[in-house]
Amino acid sequence: MERKNRYRMAILGATGAVGRRMLSTLERRGVPVEDIRLLASPRSAGTTISFRGEDLVVEAVSPESFEGVDIALFSAGASASAEWAPVAVERGAVVIDNSSAFRMHEDVPLVVPEVNPHALAHHRGIIANPNCSTIQLVVVLHALREFGLEHVTISTYQAVSGMGQRAIDALLEEVQRTQAGESDVTTVFPVVKQDRHVPMAFNVVPQCDIFLDNGYTKEEMKLVNESRKILELPSLRVTPTAVRVPVLYGHAESVSVRFQQPVTVEQVRERLANAENVVLVDDPASYSYPHPRLAEGRGETFVGRIRQDLDDPCGVLMFIVADNLLKGAAWNAVQIAEKLMEMAR
Amino acid sequence: MERKNRYRMAILGATGAVGRRMLSTLERRGVPVEDIRLLASPRSAGTTISFRGEDLVVEAVSPESFEGVDIALFSAGASASAEWAPVAVERGAVVIDNSSAFRMHEDVPLVVPEVNPHALAHHRGIIANPNCSTIQLVVVLHALREFGLEHVTISTYQAVSGMGQRAIDALLEEVQRTQAGESDVTTVFPVVKQDRHVPMAFNVVPQCDIFLDNGYTKEEMKLVNESRKILELPSLRVTPTAVRVPVLYGHAESVSVRFQQPVTVEQVRERLANAENVVLVDDPASYSYPHPRLAEGRGETFVGRIRQDLDDPCGVLMFIVADNLLKGAAWNAVQIAEKLMEMAR
Repeated sequence: MERKNRYRMAILGATGAVGRRMLSTLERRGVPVEDIRLLASPRSAGTTISFRGEDLVVEAVSPESFEGVDIALFSAGASASAEWAPVAVERGAVVIDNSSAFRMHEDVPLVVPEVNPHALAHHRGIIANPNCSTIQLVVVLHALREFGLEHVTISTYQAVSGMGQRAIDALLEEVQRTQAGESDVTTVFPVVKQDRHVPMAFNVVPQCDIFLDNGYTKEEMKLVNESRKILELPSLRVTPTAVRVPVLYGHAESVSVRFQQPVTVEQVRERLANAENVVLVDDPASYSYPHPRLAEGRGETFVGRIRQDLDDPCGVLMFIVADNLLKGAAWNAVQIAEKLMEMAR
Repeated sequence: MERKNRYRMAILGATGAVGRRMLSTLERRGVPVEDIRLLASPRSAGTTISFRGEDLVVEAVSPESFEGVDIALFSAGASASAEWAPVAVERGAVVIDNSSAFRMHEDVPLVVPEVNPHALAHHRGIIANPNCSTIQLVVVLHALREFGLEHVTISTYQAVSGMGQRAIDALLEEVQRTQAGESDVTTVFPVVKQDRHVPMAFNVVPQCDIFLDNGYTKEEMKLVNESRKILELPSLRVTPTAVRVPVLYGHAESVSVRFQQPVTVEQVRERLANAENVVLVDDPASYSYPHPRLAEGRGETFVGRIRQDLDDPCGVLMFIVADNLLKGAAWNAVQIAEKLMEMAR
């Protein structure tokens, strides 16, 4: 990408929960945007969305949409990415893709700017934004890697917004129906395409995304495979359980880390207090710890409840929270765009 | 206790969420009750509660309340138990206490009838009912003990009803306020007595009960110490994280178990399918797994999402759910009462 004072950008999936936050994050972070095209399926075209005080009209995506675009942010699902990313790259754009379509491709960098910005040096036009629950995990793990990461056991508490705006609306509808004493199951949870649905209001559901042949869900295997790729630790042990909870915004993670050497709580706190874009919220005496409502609307990753394993001097437990639509998606994608601008010459 | 055809019973804390379920469970299970006294603090006295079609009036507890009572079920908090259990025992009653007051006393059996009914053989008038999150865990672990239990890592998803009726009302109020766009924090979560409160609606809170000096919460240490006592495995490793979620009824637990030998998913499923009062709900192909709304109102413990650890042939993961007010409290206490009646002579 050529160095410029201001860049021409596009967002594919601009009307979705993440797409809207990509736009607002570009504005909040003051990214040097020359102009921006908001793109979506023909069904969503015509919607107007405000950017820097101006109303922009969403266009139906076409090959011509990417003409002259420097950076295109994609958040329209894996099949739209598979279709349109090569088209955008051919027209000269660099694509930062929030879907799972290219994440595990060998020649596609999978990037969390606090962790592996160097991976951006070599790409073929597509850069993948990792899965939401993975990003907040690796931001914290990376800050502790000098102690030797051996085994990570993680149980997640994932907000419904990870499934998009439709899931946010569905949870609110289910809650209202429950309170009215009506049957409350919508056809959204745990996976829209399934023929069997489970209530989400006042419930927790141990299924995020579809099941794979090994009995794990796709979300659980993303935690394993994406963490290994981003951290460049192909043999890191990750033991994952992904669970959906009736929260709108913000994923939480209960994490137990085994290091290759004894590590104290003080050492972990010191490293995390100094880590980039990490907020340490960890004081039991004043009941301070992270929770999703604290992280909502923020771009940082929050960590607390740091304590020694009761029986293992090499083990430390912690609780990690971030806004899944921001650090877990839009914010991280915009950070990648900024890094690309920094590196351009 | 003397063997009888029908027993005289009492419930202390009869107006609470657990107390009411103790009474309804006695009715549902057809326990041979001669008569029953409903007891509470003077503040709650005068309430009427139905039992077998008859309206019973709740009395203020006094030493005379326990005169002639064979079995008294207590669920009025630890300080009420500490005050009234010795009084009831002195009057000749056997007390089954749902509070934490006596659980770790050496001469007090801590009993889950599916696991250690033999512990009922020796008591001094007080039998402790374990903590809700512990009961459902040990029911499952016990069924797998022949494989050699070595290390249990557990993250909980705990319903607010574990904090009593007040917390149920508070969560519903917070949800309504959130939907109305009002400030939603009540003064209930995570702990009523704290001077700092956290929103519970659409949130998850990594604090159940108060913090101890080691950085763990009381709830987390109950999981460790009570599991060891009930299973009679004093050196079992338990690595606990207890988290409150916006669910009304039913605790869920994400559990990773390391055994002393390689164990297959099929072996675990076979043992659990045959375990007493355990319901195996475990078929990813038909999206079957346990969740709180499935367990609500039921006395069994539900388990699913059983899968091999990705890297360790001795490791198995699972998801365990039970109604915290029933198997986690009232149901287990009534089962203990029934066992005492069986053993009486």
